[in-house]
Formats: sequence, C-alpha cells, structure tokens
Amino acid sequence: MPDPKENLQMEKIVSLCKRRGFIFQSSEIYGGINGFWDYGPLGAELKRNVKELWWNAMTRQRDDVAGLEATIIMSPQIWKASGHVDTFSDPMCDCLLTGKRFRADQIELQSGTVYRFFGAFDKSCEEKFIQDWLDGKGSSNLTIQLPPANDISTVTEKLRAMIRSQKDFQIREALRSTLDQILKTSKRDGCGDKFSVLVPKGTVNESATRIAAQFYKKRGVNNPVPLLEAFEDVVNSQAFNPENGAELTSPRPFNLMFKTYVGPVESEDGIAYLRPETAQAIFAQFKNVLETSRQKVPFGIAQVGKAFRNEVTPRNFTFRSREFEQMELEFFIKPDEVVEAICGNVASAADVSSRVCENADNPRSDEARLPQPNWGWEAWHKYWVEERVRFYEGIGLSRETLGFHHQTPAELAHYARACTDILFKFPFSKKDADGNVAGDELEGIAARSDFDLSQHARFSGKPMGVFDDELRAAWAKLPKEKQDELWKRYHDNRKNYLLKSGVEAEPAQKQATDDANGLAKGQYIPHVIEPSAGVDRLILALIANAYTEVTKTDDKGKSETTVVMKFHPRVAPVKVGVMPLLKNKPELVKKALAVRDLLRPWMNVFYDEAGSIGRRYARQDEAGTPFCVTIDFDTLGEKPELLDTVTIRYRDDGRQERLKISELLGFLLSKIR
Amino acid sequence: MPDPKENLQMEKIVSLCKRRGFIFQSSEIYGGINGFWDYGPLGAELKRNVKELWWNAMTRQRDDVAGLEATIIMSPQIWKASGHVDTFSDPMCDCLLTGKRFRADQIELQSGTVYRFFGAFDKSCEEKFIQDWLDGKGSSNLTIQLPPANDISTVTEKLRAMIRSQKDFQIREALRSTLDQILKTSKRDGCGDKFSVLVPKGTVNESATRIAAQFYKKRGVNNPVPLLEAFEDVVNSQAFNPENGAELTSPRPFNLMFKTYVGPVESEDGIAYLRPETAQAIFAQFKNVLETSRQKVPFGIAQVGKAFRNEVTPRNFTFRSREFEQMELEFFIKPDEVVEAICGNVASAADVSSRVCENADNPRSDEARLPQPNWGWEAWHKYWVEERVRFYEGIGLSRETLGFHHQTPAELAHYARACTDILFKFPFSKKDADGNVAGDELEGIAARSDFDLSQHARFSGKPMGVFDDELRAAWAKLPKEKQDELWKRYHDNRKNYLLKSGVEAEPAQKQATDDANGLAKGQYIPHVIEPSAGVDRLILALIANAYTEVTKTDDKGKSETTVVMKFHPRVAPVKVGVMPLLKNKPELVKKALAVRDLLRPWMNVFYDEAGSIGRRYARQDEAGTPFCVTIDFDTLGEKPELLDTVTIRYRDDGRQERLKISELLGFLLSKIR
Repeated sequence: MPDPKENLQMEKIVSLCKRRGFIFQSSEIYGGINGFWDYGPLGAELKRNVKELWWNAMTRQRDDVAGLEATIIMSPQIWKASGHVDTFSDPMCDCLLTGKRFRADQIELQSGTVYRFFGAFDKSCEEKFIQDWLDGKGSSNLTIQLPPANDISTVTEKLRAMIRSQKDFQIREALRSTLDQILKTSKRDGCGDKFSVLVPKGTVNESATRIAAQFYKKRGVNNPVPLLEAFEDVVNSQAFNPENGAELTSPRPFNLMFKTYVGPVESEDGIAYLRPETAQAIFAQFKNVLETSRQKVPFGIAQVGKAFRNEVTPRNFTFRSREFEQMELEFFIKPDEVVEAICGNVASAADVSSRVCENADNPRSDEARLPQPNWGWEAWHKYWVEERVRFYEGIGLSRETLGFHHQTPAELAHYARACTDILFKFPFSKKDADGNVAGDELEGIAARSDFDLSQHARFSGKPMGVFDDELRAAWAKLPKEKQDELWKRYHDNRKNYLLKSGVEAEPAQKQATDDANGLAKGQYIPHVIEPSAGVDRLILALIANAYTEVTKTDDKGKSETTVVMKFHPRVAPVKVGVMPLLKNKPELVKKALAVRDLLRPWMNVFYDEAGSIGRRYARQDEAGTPFCVTIDFDTLGEKPELLDTVTIRYRDDGRQERLKISELLGFLLSKIR
Repeated sequence: MPDPKENLQMEKIVSLCKRRGFIFQSSEIYGGINGFWDYGPLGAELKRNVKELWWNAMTRQRDDVAGLEATIIMSPQIWKASGHVDTFSDPMCDCLLTGKRFRADQIELQSGTVYRFFGAFDKSCEEKFIQDWLDGKGSSNLTIQLPPANDISTVTEKLRAMIRSQKDFQIREALRSTLDQILKTSKRDGCGDKFSVLVPKGTVNESATRIAAQFYKKRGVNNPVPLLEAFEDVVNSQAFNPENGAELTSPRPFNLMFKTYVGPVESEDGIAYLRPETAQAIFAQFKNVLETSRQKVPFGIAQVGKAFRNEVTPRNFTFRSREFEQMELEFFIKPDEVVEAICGNVASAADVSSRVCENADNPRSDEARLPQPNWGWEAWHKYWVEERVRFYEGIGLSRETLGFHHQTPAELAHYARACTDILFKFPFSKKDADGNVAGDELEGIAARSDFDLSQHARFSGKPMGVFDDELRAAWAKLPKEKQDELWKRYHDNRKNYLLKSGVEAEPAQKQATDDANGLAKGQYIPHVIEPSAGVDRLILALIANAYTEVTKTDDKGKSETTVVMKFHPRVAPVKVGVMPLLKNKPELVKKALAVRDLLRPWMNVFYDEAGSIGRRYARQDEAGTPFCVTIDFDTLGEKPELLDTVTIRYRDDGRQERLKISELLGFLLSKIR
C-alpha cells in the first residue's frame, strides 16, 4: 500500500483533474462506471497533443514508418492466432456465499481458524429426530450417556469430542458409527454440501456457524443447523472471502477481452471481441501495408487507438482502466542471420551502445544515432528504447522521473528475446525495502522475434514472409560453410518456434527446413521490435509531473498555496492566454482580440478578460498554460517606445518581459514546437 | 439500384483504395469481417487531417466551444435516457426455412403465386394409409370414384378440385369431411405447421412443394409430403425470402447497439453497450464541462470518436459500416423565451438569412456572420448549417457536389424543431425520376429543443438547468403581460415535452409550472443545435470527389490513363514529394534530403528517389500529393542564377515552375493551411 502522503498526492491530483476539467468520471451523473474515465476540455487537448506528438515523431518525421488506423472489432480469428482467446485471462474465484468474484492472485493473505461444515439439517425436524433417537430408534448398538441435548449439532459435537478423546479403538468405532447414523438421518431433511468459513483465531465457533447457516439457507434449508466436521488453523490462505470469511471456489481463468456479437443473430458464429491491444491489427495488415507503402524491411507500422480490457480491479485513477488508448509501433527488422548474410557481421552490443545510447557524458548527434545496415535485433531494441526515452524527455519527463525494468528470462514470453519497460515514478508507485521507488510501466519495448507474423501465417494460411533481393544476391556469394551455419541457426530458431507453438515434430521439421531453404531465394519472415505505450498512463504521468504547489506570503504575512501545472509547452493544453488589462476599455479589448486572432491559427489560445489580472494568471497556471500575453495601455502607445509591444508572463517563475507583437508568433512557435 | 456505370465508378474507387493503401478490408487475411474497414497509411493520414481540421475549426479557432473525449462504453442508463435501449432498432424477420435474418423494410418487393401448406405427412406411411382408406376404414359415409392414386397429396388435391367444382352443397360438405378425415389421420405421422412459399407466377406447383418439403424435413418429418391448403397470387410482398421464396417470420425489432458485459460476471447488472453515437456523452457531461470551462450559454461541446452500430446490411463500401467515427458538436443555446426576455425580440428568419447565408451574390465577411445576442434556435440552426457548408467548401467539396434535405414534419422526431441534412453526391447515390441526384447524408444539423438535457435530468435525477444572471435581471424589468406570455409559452413547451415523454398529466403539470417559474430566478434548460458529421463517409466523399482519370496520348499516338487524386492540399495525406532528379548522384541526394528535413517539421513529406521522375510524379498523383519538389543540377548551381532553386510541380495541371528553396516553406504553408 502506498503511504498516506502518496495517497494524499493522488487525491489532490484527482481533485484538480475534476475541478479544472482534465478528467471526469465517465457517466458521473449516473453514479459512474468503474474503470472508465472521460477527458474534459483541458484533458482532451492534452491528450490530443500527446498523440499528435507521438504520431509526428513516429511516422511523419521518419521515412521508415507508415501509419495505420484499424478497427476495434476485428475477426475473432486474430485473437486465436495471437493467443488472446486461450490465454489472455486472470485467475478468478467466487465467494460461495455471495457469488462475488475475486481476482484469485490479488486476495490478501489471511490467517485464522477454518471451520469445515459438511452439511446442515432443518432445525424444525430436530425435535422429532432427537426424540426418535432417544427412543432407541436412532442407535441400537451402543448405549451412551448422552448429555442433555436439544439440537443435533450439540449432540454431534459432543459425540465428536468423545471420539477424539476415546482411546479404546472399539468404543471409538462404535461412537463413529452412531455419529454416522445421526448424520445420515438428519441430512435427509437438510443439505449435504461442504462449506468452510475462516474466522480470526480465538473467535467463537458461533460466528462461523452463522455464516455457514446463511450458506445452507441459500441452498434451500429453511432453518439450517450447520453440521461441523472439523476445524483447524491456517496461515496465509487465499481461499476465503476477506469480507465475510466464506469459502471461495477454486480459481478459474477469466478472459479479459470484452465479448460482443456482430450481425443480427447472437450465435457462436457472430462472437467478436473488442481489441485488447492495437498491435495485432498491424500484424494482420502487414502485407497490405508493405505492398502499398513502398517500404522495405527494416520499417515500421504505427497505430494509435482505443483498446479494452475487462480488468477485474481497475485502480490507481486512470492508470489501470477498462477502456484506454495505446500508441504502438511494430518495427519489422531482418533476422540476425539475414543481417549477417548481407553485411558479413551483426553489430556488437558494445558498438551499438556507444552509438545509440546517450547520456550526459556521451551526447549523440542525430547523425550518430542513424540506424546501420548491420544492426540485429539487439541494436534495434536498444535504439528504440533510447528513442522512446528521448521522446519522454522531449515532453517534459526527465530521466530522473523515469525508471527501467529489464524483464528477466523467467518473465519473458517464450518467443521474446528481450523486453525493457520504461517506468514513471507515480505518487502511488511502491517503495522497495530500501525506500527506493522503481515506478510503474509507461511503455514496454519488446523484441518479439518473428512470433507474431508466424502465428498469423499459420492461422490464416497466408504467407507473411518478405522477399529481399539483397539477401538473395549476398547468399549466392557466401562460402558454403557460412551458408550452412546461417541455415542451421535460422532453421533451429524456426523449428524451436514451431515446436513451442504446438506443431507436431514431423511437420515442424519439414516447415523449418522449407523456411531455412527460403534464405537462398531471398525469403524470410521479419522479426519485430515493439515499442508499446499507454496514452492514459502517460497523461497521468504528465499531470503528476506537472503538479506543483506554490506557496506565496503577501506583505501582511498571509500565505496562500496555489497549484501550477508545469506542463512542457509542447503538451500544454493551452499554449497562451491572451488578456486585455481591463475589460471595460474597448481599445484594449480590440487589440487583445487582434493578438488572439494573430496567434489562433497556429496554436490553442485562451482569451480571458474577466477578473483581476492576477486571478487570470492564476487560472492559467492551474490549467498549465506556459505563457500569458497582456495587452495594456503601453501596447496602445501610452509610452510611445512601447507601442505594439505586450507583456509576456512565464508560468513557471512568474517572470514578465516586454515583446513586440510582430515577434510574438515566432517566439511562441519556437517554444511550443 | 445505381446504374452499372456508377457501380463501375465505385469499383474503381474501392480498387484504388486497396492498391494505394487508403482503405483495406479489416482482417482481410482471415476473409474479412463484414462492415469493418481499416485505413492504410494514406487513409490514416487523410482521416487524421480531416479530424484535425474539424477540431481546429470547431474548438481551437473559437472561444465558444470546449472539447471532450469520453469513453465508448458508458453507463447503460445513458442509453435508457436517450431512448436507444427502447427504440434504436430495425425491424427484422427470419427465413422460416434457413433461419437467415433480413431487414424487413429492405426486402425487395416480390410478386408471384403463393402456395400455402398446412402440414406434411411422412411418405413412408402413405401406402398403408391409402390401403386403409380404400378398404373403407378411412371414409365411411360416402362413396367417391377415386382416381387411381398412389400418394395422399394426389388424393387430397383431387378431392380439393372436386370440392371446388361441386355445386351441390351437401356433396361438397361430404367431400370436405372426407378430406378432413384423410388429413387428420395423415398428420399423426407428420407435422401440422403452416408454411407458404412464393414462386414466380406460372411456375409449376412442384418447385413450391420442394421448398416446403425441406421445411417439413427440418421439422422432423422424414419423407415429407407437404399438404397444400390453397394458392393465390400476390403483388409487391415483403413476406418471403427473395433467395428461396420461403415464408419469413413477422418483423420484430432488433436493437442495433452492440452489447457487452463489464466486470467479471456476465449478468444483467453488467450489461453495457458500445456507444451508437458520441452525442450522449456530451449531454451527460454537460454540467461538468460548464462548471470547469468558464463557458456561458450559448456555447458548445465538441467530440470526435468512434461509434458502433450493428447494421444488419452494411453497404456502399465505408458509407454504412458497423464501426465508424463521428464528429459531433452540441451547441447549447437559450430557449427563444429567454432570448426574448433579455433582448426584447428574437431575430426574424429574414434578418438571419441575410446575415448568415452566403452565396455568390451575397458574400459575407467573418464579422457579418458573427452570432448575435437576439438569435433564437432558428438563427443558430441556419448559422450552423452555413458554417458546416463553409467547412466542406474549405476542404474541397464545392457547393455543387453537395445537396440538402430539410426534414419534413413527418420525418422529424417529436422533440425536434428542424433538421437539415447536408448530402454529397456519391457514385452510388440514387437518381430520381428526372435523373437528378440528391445525394446521401454527410452530416445532419438538428435543432433538438431541450429534449436531451431534459431526458438526462429526468433519468439521473440531477438538475441540468443553468442559471443566467442576465435573464433574472431582464425578467424583473418585463411588464407583467410579457412575463405571463413568455411564462405560458415556456410552460407549454415544457409540458408538451413531459407529456410526450410519458410523464403523467399531474406531475407533468407540476413540473412544467416549476420550470416556468424558474425563469424569474434566471433558470432554464438550454436548447441544443447538433451538427453531427460522419468521418468515414466524409473521407469517402473526399476520395470520390478527388478521383480523376487523366488520359494522355504520347507522340506515338499511344494513350495511357492514369489516376490523379485531386485532394484539397489541406486534407491531402502527403503535402509534398521531395525528389532528387537522380538517385546515383550523392550531391543531388544530399540536397534533396536537406530540403526534406527543412519541410518535414511542418508537414507530411514523402521522399522518393526510385524510378524515373515521371513515374515518381505519377505515383504522387495517385496518392493525391498536391506538390512535388525536384532537386536537379540547377539547384546545385549548374546554371548559377538557379542556384538553390527547385522545380515545383503542381499535381492538378502538371505545371512546373522554379522556386527559391528559401521561399519554399512559406509557399507550401500558405497552400496547405
């Protein structure tokens, strides 16, 4: 659990988001809908800016990436090929009493005493039964000194105690037989389902019995008297409902995809899913894009769009929601064997690092970072991690606010070569034992081998390989030993994929041989590097990063705390506030409107004439507007040397300076682009 | 049906869209999914441009509109309030034979002969039955000269013929009784369900009987012999499956919203819908936006986003698809009574037209079109129709390509005051009797009164009215008679809405009185004007409008036809192609890359060095790139006076001229913005 101070910080952020129109609860007037959030006027602008910057950086500013905008509902076959239908699930269990569903691996560990019941009988049958039993109709082969009893559970519990303490085997067996007989008879008028309840250690039996009685009542026993079988202490169990102690069902997988039906009939044939990620459409359209965009491997396909996951426990504001937006790039590269065949070698890790990775001691020019023909997957992976970090830096998230998680072999999927998560230190991010915050995931950059294209090739029956003239020419010139070595590596990788994907040994062997033989013809299936970012969590990171409280003390010693949202000008929802000093001076208003109209074609301008200038600045500070421009009497030439100049005021330090109107647009454009 | 030439035009467009990467079938490698389309690299850019231009025009360039980005899945209560759960449906019927579902009102009219069957018996029982009957066990009260018969249907048909031609009442009744007896007996081994089949007039009975036999076989009769009851001619019927003539069920409503479940349990409580329109989120968040955006009525809320309708018959390429994108503005205005209370009058229709509407004889400056305080709903409606037409003109759809449909009172919903549809003349648009094409809807601009906010106020229990100081002040100064008059008009409108929405007379009366009393306190529920546009159909209109075939004949008399996509530069996916004259001259390539990098931060640039310059131009023509820039030896100073100039080539007429590189960015920006 985050500490209270961190919760407080999140509370402040959530409150500001609602108050200033960044983020509202979806359907708020109807009590909301858990896991869904709307973006208000400022939030919608912020989000548009982020998506636009990503799209620009990833596609328009590059020659080697094409864009795509695919549908949210696609053929369900896609989700079979991707594995989502079979394995995209969380383990879930249900409370046997209330039916409430829990994510099995997120149930808090509980310790205490478990009371196990094996059924219940109807209390209204009890008097008759006991009478029968006392009359000798119940037990015939043993005479026991029964304690005065008026319900069966007391009788049976005491019998149990006697059985437990009885040393003599024969007497113990006789007692057991009596007990059986009692229970068999009583169950005729009750229920024989097993049920257990966890209660804190030291709690009296009655509280467990009360819960059990509710359970048996729901199963049709009118006045249930639960029959205790045993009790025992347990430690760190996840098998009971933390809210009432009732037993949970065993965990079963629950698919996280939202299901719907396409077409007028709700039948199996019409089942479709809301995409749980945008990536798969890119793989499915790989060939179409390749054929129409005049790209050659290495190249990428980028997509921004909504995705949906029916999260069991949406949490941390917009960080884990059920409807969210992704920005994904699938960057297709040559397999290392192909790179080696063409270039003679594959760039070493050290070479790549020194070329790609930038730090304070090692700043890199754009030219130095240019991709090289001899890059294998490792180089491309490093390159994209670095590109993405540079993107985050470019919108105001410094490296200090970020963290990295390099997935361990145990964490990686069988087909993945590597995955680096870029983390941001959110207010809710957990501290480790040393008090360090690693952060929570903003983006994952995965090296996914040729798994995705191979899966779609297998499931659709459509070839997903590419033809590369350069490879064919290079291959023909390779010495036989080199051909054999590369052939074998490629073959083994392909075979390994096929076997792990459940293909039988013989067809896998045949397919892998065919695939490796393709190299000589210039054919291969591209590998992919996948930088996959979440828009909503990035917006939340930008908001958390921007949130700054400023406390000012006035002359009279009265202090006031205001919020300044220090967004990078590139992402700020409003770029500039334009204000006439006074609302009731038509000349000032007219001039201010002219400045507004000058800037507006190029950026989002907020025109504001209401209230004192200080209040107007404060409002823009809270909205995160980086610049305010004020039109005053000097603008109109009261001081002739200041004619057609304005005051520009900086959000972050409150500094003000004078600027010519003719220079304003150029100045602002240089800051916001 | 569109004529073949129009189909051909659509075929060419669909083919170009696929070939050049504008639009692909979704999930194509899996055989596609009906009603879903993906946008390829060029299509994605085109769509982004259109959405960005709309957003800019509607929000960023205006002071009086705020943006919103709400979720696709919202509380299901929203769709109860909006009426979608109850009434957003198409009438559907099923084929009784195959189960195939049809949109009842779209079944083509059919004429022919209907054969009505009232059951069938199993042929294998027939011999025994006929023997029984001939033995006198079947009929006892009449002796008929039966024709030699070997199946019951022949017997019964001949009996029918005898009944029809028999003039004597008693004999006729006796025959009828015999027939009944035959049928009653035979039905024991058959099926008594009624079924009819439509066949073309003049077709022999057997074809109808064959279809009927399939029907009865599906109902468990092994060797069905259908029993004919009657036949008759019908004209223009929609009651039969056009594919096989089988009878259809009666039409039943089929809701067009995609349904899913939110949360881990698929129960009634978790039912949710994919939004069928973006508008409702705006109404649901009206108060949140009002309170956080510092707007006052009149103002609008704009949203762009996906919507989903489970169309029974998606058609006309992307025009009617199941997943689509909308651009919607809800512009909230004062009710006319409030305008009149404040301004003393409401702008007359004539005044509004002359101010708002623009045509060749009557061009209007931006200032002339500025909204006025005395505008009522009619003025705002005209204003928005005109604004939207100007938007379409601004992206290349001239007024000649558009059409208008003013909904008639019979077409309007009960709460709507007016609705104007802006149409585009698509290749598939139908011709009327005179050969004129009206077009199909691009956008509807509806005056929806205060219906939407009122519905959400009623269903959520949250007030949706606003407080207006100006109204309160003005109201106090009105003469009593004027107050009474406005009070009564407002009251009557409110009461009318409440009664039509199913509120009982007494509470409606009370509520309307309360609402009208609110006027004096400055309170009212805003009315709304809704310009609602479909992105995908606009993209299709832009593509159809841009599609131009150009035939050129070369010196040798050989002619070639190429496609030029004449997009307006504002929407064109690629703004400029940058090309070195030759690929193998490093100085040319280097300079061309420098020009690319100069332009790229400001626009989408396509760099191309492969193939002859003519081929490269042609490729850009097909992509709709308005300008190409070529770097040649003169650029490098071969002719010194041309140093650092480039050739700019215009897509639409192939014209070329020389431009300084230093002037290039400014020139292009002036064209594409």
